[in-house]
Amino acid sequence: MAVNLKPLSEIELHPIRGVDISVAEAGIKHAGRKDILVIHIDKGNTVAGVFTQNRFCAAPVQISKAHLDAGVQIRALVVNTGNANAGTGEQGRLDARAVCSSLALELGCLPEQVLPFSTGVILEPLPLDRILHALPQRYSASWADAAEAIMTTDTMPKACSRTLTVGGAAVSITGIAKGAGMIHPNMATLLGFVATDAAVTRPVLNQLVREVADVSFNCISIDGDSSTNDSFVLISSGQSDAPLIDSTDQPEYQVLKSALIEVATELAQGVVRDGEGATKFVTVEVEGGRSVAECKAVAYSIARSPLVKTAFFASDPNLGRILCAIGYAGIHDLDVDRVALYLDDVLVASNGGRHPDYKEEQGQRVLQQPEFKVRVLLNRGAAQTRIWTCDFSYDYVRINADYRS
Amino acid sequence: MAVNLKPLSEIELHPIRGVDISVAEAGIKHAGRKDILVIHIDKGNTVAGVFTQNRFCAAPVQISKAHLDAGVQIRALVVNTGNANAGTGEQGRLDARAVCSSLALELGCLPEQVLPFSTGVILEPLPLDRILHALPQRYSASWADAAEAIMTTDTMPKACSRTLTVGGAAVSITGIAKGAGMIHPNMATLLGFVATDAAVTRPVLNQLVREVADVSFNCISIDGDSSTNDSFVLISSGQSDAPLIDSTDQPEYQVLKSALIEVATELAQGVVRDGEGATKFVTVEVEGGRSVAECKAVAYSIARSPLVKTAFFASDPNLGRILCAIGYAGIHDLDVDRVALYLDDVLVASNGGRHPDYKEEQGQRVLQQPEFKVRVLLNRGAAQTRIWTCDFSYDYVRINADYRS
Repeated sequence: MAVNLKPLSEIELHPIRGVDISVAEAGIKHAGRKDILVIHIDKGNTVAGVFTQNRFCAAPVQISKAHLDAGVQIRALVVNTGNANAGTGEQGRLDARAVCSSLALELGCLPEQVLPFSTGVILEPLPLDRILHALPQRYSASWADAAEAIMTTDTMPKACSRTLTVGGAAVSITGIAKGAGMIHPNMATLLGFVATDAAVTRPVLNQLVREVADVSFNCISIDGDSSTNDSFVLISSGQSDAPLIDSTDQPEYQVLKSALIEVATELAQGVVRDGEGATKFVTVEVEGGRSVAECKAVAYSIARSPLVKTAFFASDPNLGRILCAIGYAGIHDLDVDRVALYLDDVLVASNGGRHPDYKEEQGQRVLQQPEFKVRVLLNRGAAQTRIWTCDFSYDYVRINADYRS
Repeated sequence: MAVNLKPLSEIELHPIRGVDISVAEAGIKHAGRKDILVIHIDKGNTVAGVFTQNRFCAAPVQISKAHLDAGVQIRALVVNTGNANAGTGEQGRLDARAVCSSLALELGCLPEQVLPFSTGVILEPLPLDRILHALPQRYSASWADAAEAIMTTDTMPKACSRTLTVGGAAVSITGIAKGAGMIHPNMATLLGFVATDAAVTRPVLNQLVREVADVSFNCISIDGDSSTNDSFVLISSGQSDAPLIDSTDQPEYQVLKSALIEVATELAQGVVRDGEGATKFVTVEVEGGRSVAECKAVAYSIARSPLVKTAFFASDPNLGRILCAIGYAGIHDLDVDRVALYLDDVLVASNGGRHPDYKEEQGQRVLQQPEFKVRVLLNRGAAQTRIWTCDFSYDYVRINADYRS
């Protein structure tokens, strides 16, 4: 189902020096599938993350934030799929801590040096026994295995890799992510992990993870539901020969940031391409706003509208629905008579109405493609934004009506 | 498909003295169906309305607001279905005015004394010729015919009637409404018209229409899309023997208001019961908030979540999705450990997690009913709210993917 998403077999994933992957089968939801991932990181690394702003954030999110805030060096990430450990109250936090303690004991570090992550169904107790039983039985694995081990309703794993030169030295970046529902930024996707062997100090990495998330994972929406478990984590093992990046003013900062944005954007787009039931991959660009915030409000109003998304699904250029969504985006002084709407390069609407030269066949031709762009010109300022979304199909309903059965 | 919505044949609709109904067939979208409604009102009436806050509001909405603001006495409402005359720019306003002029000429009044309304597809020119040709051919009809004449994707007409005693005199109220998609308050349903023979001055009617809309049509959501054409109009013909209501302090004001709220609420609920693809009718109550605004934010966050709505459709008590929606409703200092969640009388969650006594069979039993209540206790204040919504089914996608074909 995924829209133009490359299979793992066609993607070269570079190992990251100082980062070891292992997986296990705990049988949390289904027997015989990888549902536990451990990312073990050598000493000398830095790790930074951004997390969901949902007030019902999951127990592992609360624990991961606390462990990062404690200022200790992180040595491992442990992820389970099949259960989100969200809406589980105090017991959920105890369970997440127990997972950290168990892994820490084995690895010879402190529980606070382990970050826990969970994804899956909400409001059900974490099957702690199964996880603790499976952890010691995990086996060494690749990044491709890691991408598979964190899937829930994803139909395809998402992974991406880059090599680049930083300060004259070779550096690698590899990342994985999973969707595929409850996707709306703030921050966005359920889980994204990106590792590099470049060396970055913790304060700079904290800045970097935000800048990268803002233009990648925070620019996607599948169904408008901000998850309880969203986490995006950046790992810097520091084992390349590239110079340490300890300031955002260093030229190497921009070089690394650009490559990280490439990787994170490809992962974030991969989450949308494999959005629940998605048959279309849609870029929404809003230009000419007075602020980025109002451009985003318009873009997400379009991206969240079930009427717009079902029209995308049907390749039906019922484009009044897009104008409608622009109209209720909350810009109270919007002069609609100045708004223009394009589908790819086709001018659909201008001056508040259908453009005289526009023919419906043109709109339909654009919408029949698996990928296209919706472009809105507000004509009231110089700000702009760009986000990615998908359509709304029968399969979205099927997947979410059947998810637990 | 509609959930527990009475057929018109089982509803007694009282005629309203001083209000005449006629309908016509203009063949706007389908041949041989009533698609034009005219409500002609005798002199001595007052009329008030509330309209969509969508910035892309339709041409007829703009004209109706202007005509109401002009302060002249309204003599007629003219409604067409099949085309929304929205996103049609200046030409749309000219077309809406032409409809008013044509009817005004026939009725012997000014164009400003006619309110135009349209519903249907957006961004397509109004088929003015067909409407002008059909108008003189309309025939006298009942409120039941009127309810049918304004339907779009509605599967059943919505109408409601009451009789009451005001100041010792008999008074009647009859109203009609249509949905069934692009429904999210602000204000809510596409079109609602309620007429009474009680006599109310214009300033008091202006207040009344707002108070009634706020607790009825402004309390529903089907898909979160605020339409371009939403209009709710209250007509007072003044032909009953009840005393004139010229102050909101009069005891008769409260008596009439209560009955109007009953009628408007039944119509608004009817719109939800017949929401596009709806199989469940859901009441969402949020209590214990610091303000009504934050209670509404939580209620609509639940009512808009595609994940919650597909779980309702599946009768799947995947209730973590409700907690998730509460968590991203925007209450930044919400203490989730104090939140409780009920399904009807079943306590599902308390203290931020699943209640120890809760069994999934209980939740499933509630969700399998065609009607149930979601009740959220925020436990941080005394404010509360109540709204109505429906589930999200395959048929919602089918209806909106096929709507124009």
